[in-house]
Amino acid sequence: MVAQSLFPTLAPTIEWRDGDLLLLDQTRLPHEIVVEHVADAAAVWRAIHELRVRGAPAIGVAAAYGLCVAMQDARDLPLTQFRAELERRAGWLDTARPTAVNLSWGLRRMLQCARACNASDSKALYEALVDEAKQIHAEDQALCEGIGMHGLPLIEPGSGVLTHCNAGALATTGLGTATAPIYAAHREGIVFKVFADETRPLLQGARLTVFELQQAGVDVTLIVDSAAASIMSHGLVDLVIVGTDRVAANGDFANKIGTLSVAIAANYYGIPFYVACPSSTLDFRTPTGAQIEIEERREEEVTSLAGQPIAPRAINARNPAFDVTPHELVTGFITERGIVKAPFERSLRGFFAAEGNAA
Amino acid sequence: MVAQSLFPTLAPTIEWRDGDLLLLDQTRLPHEIVVEHVADAAAVWRAIHELRVRGAPAIGVAAAYGLCVAMQDARDLPLTQFRAELERRAGWLDTARPTAVNLSWGLRRMLQCARACNASDSKALYEALVDEAKQIHAEDQALCEGIGMHGLPLIEPGSGVLTHCNAGALATTGLGTATAPIYAAHREGIVFKVFADETRPLLQGARLTVFELQQAGVDVTLIVDSAAASIMSHGLVDLVIVGTDRVAANGDFANKIGTLSVAIAANYYGIPFYVACPSSTLDFRTPTGAQIEIEERREEEVTSLAGQPIAPRAINARNPAFDVTPHELVTGFITERGIVKAPFERSLRGFFAAEGNAA
Repeated sequence: MVAQSLFPTLAPTIEWRDGDLLLLDQTRLPHEIVVEHVADAAAVWRAIHELRVRGAPAIGVAAAYGLCVAMQDARDLPLTQFRAELERRAGWLDTARPTAVNLSWGLRRMLQCARACNASDSKALYEALVDEAKQIHAEDQALCEGIGMHGLPLIEPGSGVLTHCNAGALATTGLGTATAPIYAAHREGIVFKVFADETRPLLQGARLTVFELQQAGVDVTLIVDSAAASIMSHGLVDLVIVGTDRVAANGDFANKIGTLSVAIAANYYGIPFYVACPSSTLDFRTPTGAQIEIEERREEEVTSLAGQPIAPRAINARNPAFDVTPHELVTGFITERGIVKAPFERSLRGFFAAEGNAA
Repeated sequence: MVAQSLFPTLAPTIEWRDGDLLLLDQTRLPHEIVVEHVADAAAVWRAIHELRVRGAPAIGVAAAYGLCVAMQDARDLPLTQFRAELERRAGWLDTARPTAVNLSWGLRRMLQCARACNASDSKALYEALVDEAKQIHAEDQALCEGIGMHGLPLIEPGSGVLTHCNAGALATTGLGTATAPIYAAHREGIVFKVFADETRPLLQGARLTVFELQQAGVDVTLIVDSAAASIMSHGLVDLVIVGTDRVAANGDFANKIGTLSVAIAANYYGIPFYVACPSSTLDFRTPTGAQIEIEERREEEVTSLAGQPIAPRAINARNPAFDVTPHELVTGFITERGIVKAPFERSLRGFFAAEGNAA
């Protein structure tokens, strides 16, 4: 597995080992490394619900394997009953995180596989489902590899790369998305520096990105979000790579709050700004960033930290979870098929118009 | 007192009441409001050393009153002995925070007053020192008032004002510097909104700025630093006002880390960006921002919060305490004498060339 060779001392995000589903518990990171054996349907639901597995691609893979785990005690049922249970249990797993698109996507794909499968008994259908889950897993790893391969030439020896939030290996089952070119370059023996924004309020950069890069032996330095412009002003950053949650048809994209600020600073200093963009995040039905709805999360994420209040009581706070960066600040999108450059309206469609998420 | 009328429920930063020095303990804010009676020389030293009083202007005033407190038990000594003790005790108080310029400045001014004073006995000299401390206090309040008065016209009814860090009333004995136009507008009954960046790593915005604005009844909203650009992109910010630690001759200025990021974003969105600049922060001996040395503080401020680790062990971090914003991003400097506009090299000298900190 790619993930294992990159992280000699760290378990993979998700592993399927002889019928056992093993998840690296991300709620304990970075202070404890705990691998959970997810043994039944209820445990799968809880692991997804409690964010022990997180990141859109990883959730899709966990959903697929999780449905297999959930069906293990049904393998002796008659086929018709197995199929009925499969639909019922998939529907129930889908409630673990109502807004996680990849959870529904992974389960739907497993159900489509089952419906199309002419297995003669439940055991055979179960094996077909395991094969489909492995296929989804392999596709996720291949997608990360593709982004890594196409992004690799952007990273020069001795350069500085800045990233924001965690679009990392921990959010996928492979090299990650924004981190894929970083790991690909590291694997090639290229020596360079990474700066990781801590990413308030939830600190995904401090907790996850620096952790996984450190585990892989990449030279990484943590900074507070507001220091990014200062680090750029000293000539320490040659390239920015971030992830994305959704890309509109014109190239405007949504990502974790603070991405816009980094993009504006990179633009000011003339630093190339790339977005790692698996084709699953392209949404041609959304014409521009103005139509992307931004989730506003609980004020407590801003007014407290790790359960400790850091602001006076009854203070107003705004907590937009994402921001939208306009396409004119984007140098290119690093996709699994290659790098897409402006004009994005045309070039993104040219690369991906045949995909399922086209209008 | 200005501070009292602004903060009906909050004690002033520093108060001199019938020979007693009262300090608002800023290490307990925002969770506890504790006023400390500073009763002798040792208590003055500790209060300054332990940052219970902070902010350059406030430290200068505390030093002046603190020296009076330190001399209270010497009023019965012969005049020559009183003078010797005064020099000795001032020298000792000056060790409380070796790098605080305003501490030395306040003590030096008190000693100059004593040397120039023809008092006939120790009691009379002591009274002259108290008068000088009151004068320093009044000058600080007048300076804040001047910045407030000149900045007031910038704040339109219904507008949004963003600030970073705490250049507030708590750092002075009056309206603050960056907050002075805000308080002046609030006092005039103008209704507007303030957005305060939390200001990682030490959270002066979350702990102090939103606290003092809330106490004064100003409509204030706390955001994480990296949300500033997003808030601007939604048209919610019409004006940025920040403080400064040092302004170079060409108008480049140093301020808390993150100021540069806010300035670049304001520039991108065409939002006026002002620096509240008491003449004491002008340094004509420093030609440009490139000559301003930036303090790099302990990594633990980034890797932990309130004593809790938020990043993996043994991770590298950078922690520049300040950044330098180039003058081309500055719309104007709000000084106690008026607003200074570009070209700053000429206009700053025009306003202040006669001051003591000129080359």
